Amino acid sequence: MNIPSKYLEEAVEQFSSLPGIGKRTALRLVLNLLKREPDELERFGDILQQLKSHVQSCSSCGNISDTAICSICSNEKRNHRLICVVEDIRDVMAIESTGTYQGIYHVLGGIISPMDGIGPNDLFIQPLVDKCAAGQADEIILALSPTMEGDTTNFFLYKKLHATNVQITALSRGIAVGSEIQYADEITLSRSIQQRIPFQS
Amino acid sequence: MNIPSKYLEEAVEQFSSLPGIGKRTALRLVLNLLKREPDELERFGDILQQLKSHVQSCSSCGNISDTAICSICSNEKRNHRLICVVEDIRDVMAIESTGTYQGIYHVLGGIISPMDGIGPNDLFIQPLVDKCAAGQADEIILALSPTMEGDTTNFFLYKKLHATNVQITALSRGIAVGSEIQYADEITLSRSIQQRIPFQS
Repeated sequence: MNIPSKYLEEAVEQFSSLPGIGKRTALRLVLNLLKREPDELERFGDILQQLKSHVQSCSSCGNISDTAICSICSNEKRNHRLICVVEDIRDVMAIESTGTYQGIYHVLGGIISPMDGIGPNDLFIQPLVDKCAAGQADEIILALSPTMEGDTTNFFLYKKLHATNVQITALSRGIAVGSEIQYADEITLSRSIQQRIPFQS
Repeated sequence: MNIPSKYLEEAVEQFSSLPGIGKRTALRLVLNLLKREPDELERFGDILQQLKSHVQSCSSCGNISDTAICSICSNEKRNHRLICVVEDIRDVMAIESTGTYQGIYHVLGGIISPMDGIGPNDLFIQPLVDKCAAGQADEIILALSPTMEGDTTNFFLYKKLHATNVQITALSRGIAVGSEIQYADEITLSRSIQQRIPFQS
C-alpha cells in the first residue's frame, strides 16, 4: 500500500499495531480522523497520553480502577472470603453483568501460555496465594476459559493453593442455555452427561 | 457495559467513535494499549494531535499530501490533460497500484449522498470545473463506484462539465477478471453483453 503522505503513513502504522486492525482498516480510521476538528484530535491524543497515569490496577485484586483499591474490593457488602479468579477485566465485567455474584475477584492479567512466552511469573498470582495462606479466603472459584491455556493455569493455581486448605471450585461446564444439543461439540456433550445434575422443577 | 474506570471508559468512547469499531472492540484495543510503555502512548498521542497540521490536501487535485502540491500533480512526466475523478484517496492508491495510469487525479473527497447530507457543495468539484473551462484538460475519466450515489455524482459532474467540450469517459463495467459468469449479478451481466467488445487474441 503506497500512502502518499509520510505523516498519514505514521498514523496508519500506529493504528495497525493494534490487535485485529490491518493496514486497510487503519487507513479508513485515520481518514475518518482527518475529517474531524483539530480540538477533537487534541482530546483523543490527550486521553491516550494520560491513560497509563490515570488508570491503575487495584493492589488487592488486580482489577482496573481509578483508585488504589477498586470499587468491588472496597465494597463491604460483598463476601471477601469468596474469590473468583479470572483472566482479564472483561471477565469481571461479564460476571458483574449477571448481577448474581456477591464475592470479590482476582484478576490474573492473562493466562499461562508458553507459546506466547507468558509464564506464571508474568501473572498476578502471588497475592492470591498469600491471601489464601493467610486464611483470608474460604473458597476460590476458578473461572478461566476452557482452553488448553486456561486448563494449564487452573492446574498451576490448584497446585499452588491446594496446600492452603482453601476450597477450590470451577465454573460448571455443559450445554449453554438456548443452544441446541445437536450442535454441541462432543467434549462438552460428553462432560454434560457425566456431570449431570438433579432435575429442578 | 459497565467499565470500572472512568478514564478507561473515556478512551473506549474515543475508539468506539471510529467507524466500524464497537464498544467491545474498543475495549480490547484500549486494554492492549494499557500494556504498552508510556512513551509508546506518548508517541501515538502526538501523531494524532499533529495529524491535521501535517497532512494537507493538494490544492490542485485534492489528494492527500505532505506538500502543497502532491507528488502526482508535480510529476512532469504525467499527462496533466488526462484527469481521473475519484471519490477518495484510497481510490487513487488502488489505481496507482495498477501501474498503468499515466494521467493525474481529481479527488472529490466524497460522493453526493443526500441520505448522509452530502451535497455537491461539500465536495471538491469547482476546481475541476474551472480547469476544464480554462481548457486545461482533454479528457475526464469518471471513476466513481457503480452505486446509486456514484451514478448521481457522475451525472452531476457530466452536467457541469458537458458545456466545456472536454471528453468525458467512465470506467468500463463488466465481468471482473477471475470471476465466474454464473455468479455475476444480472445488471452486470446484461451490461457486459450490451457493451461487448471485439475479441482480442
